Amino acid sequence: MNIKEINGGVCAPKGFKASGAHCGIRHNRTKNDIAMIFSEVSGVAAAVYTKNLVKGAPLTVTKNNLQKSNGIAQAVICNSGNANTCNANGIEIAEKMCELAANELKIKPENIIVGSTGVIGQPLDIEPIKKGIPELVKNLSDNGSDSACEGIMTTDTKKKEIAVEFEIDGKICRIGAIAKGSGMIHPNMATMLVFIVSDVSISAELLQTALSENVKDTFNMISVDGDTSTNDMVSIIANGMAGNEKISELGKNFDTFKEALKFVTLYLCKKIAGDGEGATKLLECVINGADNINTAKIVAKGVICSSLFKAAMFGADANWGRVLCAIGYSGAEVDVNKIDVAFESEAGKIDVCHNGTGLDFSEEKAKEILLKPEIKILISLNLGDKSATAYGCDLTYEYVKINGDYRS
Amino acid sequence: MNIKEINGGVCAPKGFKASGAHCGIRHNRTKNDIAMIFSEVSGVAAAVYTKNLVKGAPLTVTKNNLQKSNGIAQAVICNSGNANTCNANGIEIAEKMCELAANELKIKPENIIVGSTGVIGQPLDIEPIKKGIPELVKNLSDNGSDSACEGIMTTDTKKKEIAVEFEIDGKICRIGAIAKGSGMIHPNMATMLVFIVSDVSISAELLQTALSENVKDTFNMISVDGDTSTNDMVSIIANGMAGNEKISELGKNFDTFKEALKFVTLYLCKKIAGDGEGATKLLECVINGADNINTAKIVAKGVICSSLFKAAMFGADANWGRVLCAIGYSGAEVDVNKIDVAFESEAGKIDVCHNGTGLDFSEEKAKEILLKPEIKILISLNLGDKSATAYGCDLTYEYVKINGDYRS
Repeated sequence: MNIKEINGGVCAPKGFKASGAHCGIRHNRTKNDIAMIFSEVSGVAAAVYTKNLVKGAPLTVTKNNLQKSNGIAQAVICNSGNANTCNANGIEIAEKMCELAANELKIKPENIIVGSTGVIGQPLDIEPIKKGIPELVKNLSDNGSDSACEGIMTTDTKKKEIAVEFEIDGKICRIGAIAKGSGMIHPNMATMLVFIVSDVSISAELLQTALSENVKDTFNMISVDGDTSTNDMVSIIANGMAGNEKISELGKNFDTFKEALKFVTLYLCKKIAGDGEGATKLLECVINGADNINTAKIVAKGVICSSLFKAAMFGADANWGRVLCAIGYSGAEVDVNKIDVAFESEAGKIDVCHNGTGLDFSEEKAKEILLKPEIKILISLNLGDKSATAYGCDLTYEYVKINGDYRS
Repeated sequence: MNIKEINGGVCAPKGFKASGAHCGIRHNRTKNDIAMIFSEVSGVAAAVYTKNLVKGAPLTVTKNNLQKSNGIAQAVICNSGNANTCNANGIEIAEKMCELAANELKIKPENIIVGSTGVIGQPLDIEPIKKGIPELVKNLSDNGSDSACEGIMTTDTKKKEIAVEFEIDGKICRIGAIAKGSGMIHPNMATMLVFIVSDVSISAELLQTALSENVKDTFNMISVDGDTSTNDMVSIIANGMAGNEKISELGKNFDTFKEALKFVTLYLCKKIAGDGEGATKLLECVINGADNINTAKIVAKGVICSSLFKAAMFGADANWGRVLCAIGYSGAEVDVNKIDVAFESEAGKIDVCHNGTGLDFSEEKAKEILLKPEIKILISLNLGDKSATAYGCDLTYEYVKINGDYRS
């Protein structure tokens, strides 16, 4: 199957426009703080939300909207700079955002997906948003993905957007997405905020199935800091404008769509992990030889979440003992005497541990490998044939700096 | 009941001597790297070990020894600079340490508790230890606790030792202890290394009961970095020299002993948490109003382990949203709309969140409170009358620095 990366982000699929603006939630006028995505025609929508018991008000409102509209959506509105969470009037404000956007777009409020990201527990003022929405609607354009992407960033240092095209039934279909996420990243259902759009024609039920299955191996396998956010949400709108025969049953076409979706989400996962707050390195922890997938996932997550291991990676220190230590306390049932560990990057690969015991390896070569910006930690459990991969980043001074004074 | 803090550390209880030495495991000659504790007469011993699947060889050997000796011990030998873990010859080396110490002390190897702490996965050379043991034995003295305490330190910046006296049956009894632990601290049974001695007369069974119950509320409630070490061990030897009537059943005397033991272990917990790698602050997370103790513990641990919250405390930022966020993903069943949060230190107390929603508080006052070295985070769940406290520290640049290059 042929999946081709293309330009345009969320504006690549047919019928989608986007825009971003600075409305004044953030004082920094050089960065957008609000974003909109709009589809010419309404589409089926699916979403997954954080499992944190504390849920941002926008998530509740989005869930209510999609319930009321029977899963039909046409637009996304999202602000940064304030999470609209743990506020007494949170629901009211999130509903007001939908209402204002709906009026301006001449659609129904329940067809809107709403998101917020930023500080928790500070009331969100509706005034700047009221002023910003007309500007967003006016600026909606075919090349607005970049501007929208900026509008949802917080401590992110890099924009995270992608678009792909693929074929179903001889018709070219597209998926585009923007994402944000840098700190408080340890998704347990979805990640901070990911807005995916597609022009594929698909039933609402299969769209939700595809998304729910997808996040288990993608966003739920990232960790920047072990903190599961209150505002995690991944949503997708598919407006059917690609003109393919509607995907309404399992089979080849559904698989093709799922594969394209995975291409998009995995790309964003690596972008989010690699742009973790303060990160200098993307870490991919690849587990092979597990006796079941759950064990593989627990081990992968255990290693990628270890503060000690993450700090060692920052220092390019091949301290594999910390890998073994993290596997040991992860809660997975493994035989520690069968574990092999290797480090790999563009500079090569080096085996450091065999059967749970250290190998005599070149520290110099290991350093060379670990100084690269993308590191794979290859772990073989030698108990079976199941695999899993988790994505994370190193722990750095910058992480502490960013989070020691986030609200100021 | 009267528990009085006294001087002398592990040499305070009758019949105990200690010593430390630099034998050459560490290149830094200014710091001891090996320690010994010895009792004139043998005593009953109890120990708890890490729950990490990867267990240091010294733990296995200690466990074997105490099994072979029916829980009778007379000495402790412990080195720093190398954890003797994940090494092919680990067991052999740990047994050799016991054998060498036993020969020099003229006791049996199975009466020795052996520990190691330091880097994982580098073979431990027996030669320096062989040379060091005669020196340790020669130097055993009544004021050697300090020197022994230094011998077990790794990245610790402060010595952790304490002794108390209390009365049972009109006899003065004593407990003394030394501990080490700074990084890789998230005990799930015991903490890094704690050696406790007492001259109380008690049955082996009740000694183990007291210790096992104790760690649940003390060492198992600390977290510096979420990493459960492979070498965690808490041991206690009670040699009976206080002359009290032997404690061999539950009741008042056993309760007195447990209370004194808790005084000692809680003191060490706070010392370990406050001296967490890179820490500038001791954090105590106090949960009240839980409907059961397990929920209280899960919430306390969830908050104390949150990297984002820890970084906020480093920055003296009253970011209570991160407290709510951590509670929300902790896995505990709570009603987020009933949660109250306050911060407290010697500078006062400030309420920041009521019923899950932010209060309008003085940022200036909050800053003043959070700039102190010991901070209490007071969380009321308002669902019942159960409580728990967890101990931790802030996340700082220094933590990253220390762990980015630990092996070098």
